[in-house]
Amino acid sequence: MSRKKISVIGGGFTGATTAFLLAQKELGDVVLVDIPQAENPTKGKALDMLEASPVQGFDAKITGTSNYADTVDSDVVIITAGIARKPGMSRDDLVQTNQKVMKAVTQEIVKYSPNSTIIVLTNPVDAMTYTVYKESGFPKNRVIGQSGVLDTARFRTFVAEELNLSVKDITGFVLGGHGDTMVPLTRYSFAGGIPLEKLIPADRLEAIVARTRTGGGEIVELLGNGSAYYAPAASLVEMTEAVLKDQRRVLPSIAYLEGEYGYEGIYLGVPTILGAGGIEQIIELDLTADEKAALDKSAEAVKAVMSVLI
Amino acid sequence: MSRKKISVIGGGFTGATTAFLLAQKELGDVVLVDIPQAENPTKGKALDMLEASPVQGFDAKITGTSNYADTVDSDVVIITAGIARKPGMSRDDLVQTNQKVMKAVTQEIVKYSPNSTIIVLTNPVDAMTYTVYKESGFPKNRVIGQSGVLDTARFRTFVAEELNLSVKDITGFVLGGHGDTMVPLTRYSFAGGIPLEKLIPADRLEAIVARTRTGGGEIVELLGNGSAYYAPAASLVEMTEAVLKDQRRVLPSIAYLEGEYGYEGIYLGVPTILGAGGIEQIIELDLTADEKAALDKSAEAVKAVMSVLI
Amino acid sequence: MSRKKISVIGGGFTGATTAFLLAQKELGDVVLVDIPQAENPTKGKALDMLEASPVQGFDAKITGTSNYADTVDSDVVIITAGIARKPGMSRDDLVQTNQKVMKAVTQEIVKYSPNSTIIVLTNPVDAMTYTVYKESGFPKNRVIGQSGVLDTARFRTFVAEELNLSVKDITGFVLGGHGDTMVPLTRYSFAGGIPLEKLIPADRLEAIVARTRTGGGEIVELLGNGSAYYAPAASLVEMTEAVLKDQRRVLPSIAYLEGEYGYEGIYLGVPTILGAGGIEQIIELDLTADEKAALDKSAEAVKAVMSVLI
Amino acid sequence: MSRKKISVIGGGFTGATTAFLLAQKELGDVVLVDIPQAENPTKGKALDMLEASPVQGFDAKITGTSNYADTVDSDVVIITAGIARKPGMSRDDLVQTNQKVMKAVTQEIVKYSPNSTIIVLTNPVDAMTYTVYKESGFPKNRVIGQSGVLDTARFRTFVAEELNLSVKDITGFVLGGHGDTMVPLTRYSFAGGIPLEKLIPADRLEAIVARTRTGGGEIVELLGNGSAYYAPAASLVEMTEAVLKDQRRVLPSIAYLEGEYGYEGIYLGVPTILGAGGIEQIIELDLTADEKAALDKSAEAVKAVMSVLI
Repeated sequence: MSRKKISVIGGGFTGATTAFLLAQKELGDVVLVDIPQAENPTKGKALDMLEASPVQGFDAKITGTSNYADTVDSDVVIITAGIARKPGMSRDDLVQTNQKVMKAVTQEIVKYSPNSTIIVLTNPVDAMTYTVYKESGFPKNRVIGQSGVLDTARFRTFVAEELNLSVKDITGFVLGGHGDTMVPLTRYSFAGGIPLEKLIPADRLEAIVARTRTGGGEIVELLGNGSAYYAPAASLVEMTEAVLKDQRRVLPSIAYLEGEYGYEGIYLGVPTILGAGGIEQIIELDLTADEKAALDKSAEAVKAVMSVLI
Repeated sequence: MSRKKISVIGGGFTGATTAFLLAQKELGDVVLVDIPQAENPTKGKALDMLEASPVQGFDAKITGTSNYADTVDSDVVIITAGIARKPGMSRDDLVQTNQKVMKAVTQEIVKYSPNSTIIVLTNPVDAMTYTVYKESGFPKNRVIGQSGVLDTARFRTFVAEELNLSVKDITGFVLGGHGDTMVPLTRYSFAGGIPLEKLIPADRLEAIVARTRTGGGEIVELLGNGSAYYAPAASLVEMTEAVLKDQRRVLPSIAYLEGEYGYEGIYLGVPTILGAGGIEQIIELDLTADEKAALDKSAEAVKAVMSVLI
Repeated sequence: MSRKKISVIGGGFTGATTAFLLAQKELGDVVLVDIPQAENPTKGKALDMLEASPVQGFDAKITGTSNYADTVDSDVVIITAGIARKPGMSRDDLVQTNQKVMKAVTQEIVKYSPNSTIIVLTNPVDAMTYTVYKESGFPKNRVIGQSGVLDTARFRTFVAEELNLSVKDITGFVLGGHGDTMVPLTRYSFAGGIPLEKLIPADRLEAIVARTRTGGGEIVELLGNGSAYYAPAASLVEMTEAVLKDQRRVLPSIAYLEGEYGYEGIYLGVPTILGAGGIEQIIELDLTADEKAALDKSAEAVKAVMSVLI
Repeated sequence: MSRKKISVIGGGFTGATTAFLLAQKELGDVVLVDIPQAENPTKGKALDMLEASPVQGFDAKITGTSNYADTVDSDVVIITAGIARKPGMSRDDLVQTNQKVMKAVTQEIVKYSPNSTIIVLTNPVDAMTYTVYKESGFPKNRVIGQSGVLDTARFRTFVAEELNLSVKDITGFVLGGHGDTMVPLTRYSFAGGIPLEKLIPADRLEAIVARTRTGGGEIVELLGNGSAYYAPAASLVEMTEAVLKDQRRVLPSIAYLEGEYGYEGIYLGVPTILGAGGIEQIIELDLTADEKAALDKSAEAVKAVMSVLI
């Protein structure tokens, strides 16, 4: 009857916010890991969060560390580590740099938490999740990428704003890769069960879809320096909760496909069931020709990134 | 039956985290305000938080702005704006710079939300709360400073860690100014109602008190760059909730004293009752000679800062 | 900045459970009202609930009374009062007895809380909501009946069980009257946005619809003595929260129709937007011929009950 | 990473309310058990609760049964079964009847959940907890009685009402048996850390203590038929949560004493630390002569009941 344990690799804004939201929900004890050079700031953030716990009323140990031994026996490990693309950096450089990070991190995870479920956020997330999968040797259901929960959250936010309705009643649906090639299925998106097409004019709905596709970039541009972290953190926490509490949630995940939707050997965003077993099921939907074409394009983009992996 | 409205002045880490925690609790709609040069990042943070709302399941508008007109009719206004002391900056410079910020901010609050309750976090907080009080012309009960909730939270965290107990069952008590002259009353501090003196050896308890006194500095040192924001934000939210929900909480606040504890015309940390009326009551405790001497020292320190006000 | 106030008329299991769930969420202070003969038990329940508040950590006054003066200035009034059909009692007797109760209760509400929003649960709920509307003279948007939230909750429960999925991801949609003539729109019902038709075989889905229609009866039969109260209470609380927090939820309500869906002058279950203004909007959907026929049947059933009103 | 499992023995008001509050907090799946004659009502209550879950937003299976096999592998088992004293029934009859119930129930628990922690509510609770301890052969730390959390909750409620303060800031402390011989330690009871003696006149505080002692009776008298169940259920849930989440809460429990406080071989209400190990520690306080005398009286009362056990 001991507590669950969650390790968050990468102590930047997203990692730290994820750690805080996990602790708030008392999902388990949280270990926030960063590189040795960032050990003190990571400890500082962890301590600051811990000092919020008496006021917010949650019981969870939050530890900052650069020592992977502290992550031993984690139930879930979340990877937010890696670099963001810098001006002048080629995409290939980004991919290969983060690939190295993923490999190093994964080796530590395998060493200390061989039975954990891993959730990956690092970009380009489809290829990075694939890297972690291959490096870990874990069964595919225990290596999951995040993008669809976040993309859907943005879509829902924009729709709720458009209609001036509670976000609680807006549901959305996104397939495919994270970013430009994302495939929002508006025909599977609703307000209180009512198809959005009946509530929002086509051109407005199209504009919302377009805004969703570039939702990450919108925040990057506004911030000027850095990228979104509140909504990404919340998304990671929702997936983690589904696994730790065995909720069998229907959530979009980046899952390893072996024939589903006609793809083989790639990680791609699809509807899944998340529970104690990680990705317990991939749900296959009938797609229209247009949707299938968009998804193909998305899969091609993922493969293009994968081709850069070394 | 419209929603409550809370404005947070200052869109840095503390202000932003405060805004998020307020929205999470659905305490009302939140307006995050910063200077025009920071308008876009402020809008970016607000949007990122809003995009977390469908996932976390809360309904609250969160707006980033540099236009005080957007704060109109706020129920509570929280001030986190101001600068931190920089290397080479004299204390007097810090005080006078932040005093100017307080005056400017207060004028906007008075203009747009004349019936609001103001909660101040900006350091040196005792003198800054005094400045806001004087500038606003608000009745004293509606101008409140935060320090004791945070100091107590740190104390409770350290005690819980020492005893390996739930933070939920540790209560603490802090009087006086924020920082070195803070007066932790350990005889009014308990674990599940049991006096800490019975549970923790005297030297360990003394060490915890000492650590509490420099709790802010500990985080600053660890972070290397910046200061604590999770626990400060949580503290501001607890005080705001007490006011908005008229909870009549017994919380330490920086309150304007007119004779209480033997002081006149200064803002100082004392036990208060917080409800719809802001500080609805100051609770006067009998102090030991030692405690009174420590509180006097704290009051002197506050007066010394106040003497620098221009 | 005072607290909201909610009065619950009828201190039976449903009324008491509703009061408790309202207080748990700190939606406001709660007054539980019953007839003078039941005053002491009502006070006893209120006190018992209040004694749970330190443990559950909520601040709300809960008062039991038989004196409507205690309900003064309520923001929302929930009516659960009335009798259940007893063996040998004709339907007309039931209708007319509860109609008298509604009239008496409504007069007290109008007297003490003329600006409140009223939510009715008493059966037959369509006709009873109509009675309260007429007796109160309130604008139609401030008199609302509950049935669809509960019916949908049952449907969602059965679907979640069938698919072994989280209830959080199942959405449902019910139109029409409460009970046998309810019109579940399965084509607007989803698991994580995926149409149920794709996940559940037609005959199983039909069985679930049938079970939903008789969901109240299923509980009555199991209990042997009495009827459901947990799910009805939760449903009332969700509607009340939408109004008090101005959430603009998309929820099915029993609303007064003046031409919508082709009906005039009756209360019937339709999709609505609930916010500070009560029913802020009725959403009209295109129905298939089958659905329209089912809804007509439901409307006829409501009118048949209304014809018995005296 | 499977879900926790909690069984609640006894499907009356307290048992059912406990089941609901456990599920609301997503502490695990809940099995509500009653005798075969009450199987259908128990199933009805469980189903009604489950149907509230989509609305309240919690994921937990709730099952009603009369078959102990359904409780297999429970992490915690809560016993609320037993009869209440009826008019004309001698105390000895009550004790011996409930003792038989405890023995039968315990045999089933031992059979199906040999590693569980048991929490007992059935009255007379000190003797019944002792019975379960002896019958189970479990180590003493895994057999716990509830009375102090409830007694303290009542005390805190009355104090909060007296001072018009938030219940969140009132702490209390109760030793000894449940009922007339309970020993409230007012010197260990506080409002926001401030000793109650400084806030409440002695005679009022005495009246509150007296009211706490007969707090159960007050509800019984008001209800006319039946006894309190909201606050008892909340108390059981808090203890269960402490165990399941390994919170190391400082809560009063009925614990088996082997020398502590000078008593040997009896179950009595004392301050304890509750965590994954059940009662992980008994905290011994220095008592005044008066307090010790009162506790002795309480222990005598417990022994008197134990002497009736067969």
